[in-house]
Amino acid sequence: MSVFEVQLTDSSSAGRQGVLTTAHGKVETPAFMAVGTAGAVKGITPQQLKETGAEIILANTYHLLLRPGVEVVESLGGLHKFMAWEGPILTDSGGYQVFSLSRLAKIDNDGVEFASHIDGARIRLDAETATEIQNRLGADIIMCFDQCTAFGVDKAQLKIAVERTLGWAGRCKRAHGNSNQLLFGIVQGGTDRDLRGYCAGELVKLDFDGYALGGLGVGEGHEKMIEAVGHTTELLPEDKPRYLMGVGTPADIVAAVRAGVDMFDCVLPTRNGRNAFAFTEGGAVRLRNSAHRGAAEPIEAGCDCYCCRHFSRGTIRHFFNSGEMLGPILLSVHNLTFYQRLMARIRQRLKANEFSDWAREQLRNVY
Amino acid sequence: MSVFEVQLTDSSSAGRQGVLTTAHGKVETPAFMAVGTAGAVKGITPQQLKETGAEIILANTYHLLLRPGVEVVESLGGLHKFMAWEGPILTDSGGYQVFSLSRLAKIDNDGVEFASHIDGARIRLDAETATEIQNRLGADIIMCFDQCTAFGVDKAQLKIAVERTLGWAGRCKRAHGNSNQLLFGIVQGGTDRDLRGYCAGELVKLDFDGYALGGLGVGEGHEKMIEAVGHTTELLPEDKPRYLMGVGTPADIVAAVRAGVDMFDCVLPTRNGRNAFAFTEGGAVRLRNSAHRGAAEPIEAGCDCYCCRHFSRGTIRHFFNSGEMLGPILLSVHNLTFYQRLMARIRQRLKANEFSDWAREQLRNVY
Repeated sequence: MSVFEVQLTDSSSAGRQGVLTTAHGKVETPAFMAVGTAGAVKGITPQQLKETGAEIILANTYHLLLRPGVEVVESLGGLHKFMAWEGPILTDSGGYQVFSLSRLAKIDNDGVEFASHIDGARIRLDAETATEIQNRLGADIIMCFDQCTAFGVDKAQLKIAVERTLGWAGRCKRAHGNSNQLLFGIVQGGTDRDLRGYCAGELVKLDFDGYALGGLGVGEGHEKMIEAVGHTTELLPEDKPRYLMGVGTPADIVAAVRAGVDMFDCVLPTRNGRNAFAFTEGGAVRLRNSAHRGAAEPIEAGCDCYCCRHFSRGTIRHFFNSGEMLGPILLSVHNLTFYQRLMARIRQRLKANEFSDWAREQLRNVY
Repeated sequence: MSVFEVQLTDSSSAGRQGVLTTAHGKVETPAFMAVGTAGAVKGITPQQLKETGAEIILANTYHLLLRPGVEVVESLGGLHKFMAWEGPILTDSGGYQVFSLSRLAKIDNDGVEFASHIDGARIRLDAETATEIQNRLGADIIMCFDQCTAFGVDKAQLKIAVERTLGWAGRCKRAHGNSNQLLFGIVQGGTDRDLRGYCAGELVKLDFDGYALGGLGVGEGHEKMIEAVGHTTELLPEDKPRYLMGVGTPADIVAAVRAGVDMFDCVLPTRNGRNAFAFTEGGAVRLRNSAHRGAAEPIEAGCDCYCCRHFSRGTIRHFFNSGEMLGPILLSVHNLTFYQRLMARIRQRLKANEFSDWAREQLRNVY
């Protein structure tokens, strides 16, 4: 049986609706993964997370490696038990964080050496260790170790990163030692059409369980990103899931589904939730705004999340003004529910073969 | 029908087990009230709070008056709706916070004038306004405005505070304008037996729905506090609930129940929870301790709270070390569950007429 089944392909876009099967259950795609960086989706319990409609979550190898350490997670029964999440989990490889968070000491074709952003400890990561660590953490989907580039680096640097990413991808595949885990390759190449195409083609030859698009949503802007996504997904096999890493806003997601993406992760719902910013169908609601003083309406009328069923905008504004933890908690619950509802709507529209019109409407009117 | 029914009086102590009836439901006593200072029990949702076994919660008039203001709570449908708590709520009168948190500008027999600890705004509170504010907030039980004294003030000062508290109690009773709310008087007098006795006797003449013991747990120590509690409860009517304000540790609660107290509130379970301190039957567990690194056992074996059913000490320690909100959230859930379980055990032992022996054992062995 294939781990990924495309159930429906949109007749007038690259969008598709499918089901991904993992060792800890199935995931309906297009899917959004809440980010549980260090083993917790910030501010909410796994039970609350499940109530948002989440089927799969993400955790960061880099963060877990630094703290508490892979041996601690392992001794506590692996990542599912550690996080108290029984459903599917995906771990990234640590590549992105090595390049964005740590002080990089050395990088060559073999791997990277960096100083922990927590305590400065010198740590080495390469294709084999990043894979072994993810094998030991025990997520359902693991990622190849890749070199992520910042937006705007020149083509020569992009090319070096792509070649390294490809070399490391082959080594990750050989090192991968747990057949219960799916291994995804990561396409790099910035917004350079040739390099991304080359990277995608070479990765496909290695035959991964799925393909991620990395190095996007890093400053290139919505249009350029969606263009790069569209070029890339055309080159990827139809029967494998495609995951756009770290993206994005509701508009990014709708447009990227239209360009053929199946999976997403992003910190926006929780990070914005902690900053009093609520996503709604009608647009952003900023809860610190004095307009919400004493407002009896919920964040979003008709929303069935715990926050909207029980609390008024006025109370939530008060919680933020008073520094009550319940403000960030409730808005994180709402925003994650909003994102899951968006994904459910996308899947419904795909199933009803109404996606393209709906997506065009959404992108024009709302976002 | 009486609002308070003593169902059982312990044969060898002043302990009693009863039921308090309020406009929003019944409360089994002895009862512990979680503290929802500014309209939220810090870190947990009302749903999680209910799952701890809580039947009644407390909110602080002083905090709500300063922010968001009584008119905001009122416009949002009153305190129950504001907090999303359908069960009984008690509000204090603000007296304690005026004396402990604010910069006091003026105090005389008429009332107090103080500067808000938030923005310095000059605010006046007296018996009538404190009562009217509580009438408008809409809790099920409201408290008389009282003058709370610090531990160690001389008898002359204590006497002035007692006389003011008595004068204000009469005015509160006359001002009280909502028959759905029970009004409790507050006995002051520090640890001075004569003054406390005098204050209790005079309050009883005014005939309140219940009586609180204020100004205790402020530095006098466990023994002196319990002594003062015992002297006071002897002077209070059998058929009215007795509430020891702001107390305390598990040992304080067990000893105070033995001395005839029916109701408690305290920030310890949530405040300690936020500081990685867990209450267990076996004593304190400090989750930052390196002994818990990688520990697979729950905080407390056999505890049925969400935290203990799903998370290991090792994971919770990691959450605290990483600054994850889930650490404080989970420990607050556990500690509040521990307190509610303690109260349930106290009630069970009282019903089984085994309370005195059990309490002696508890106070000797555990705390």
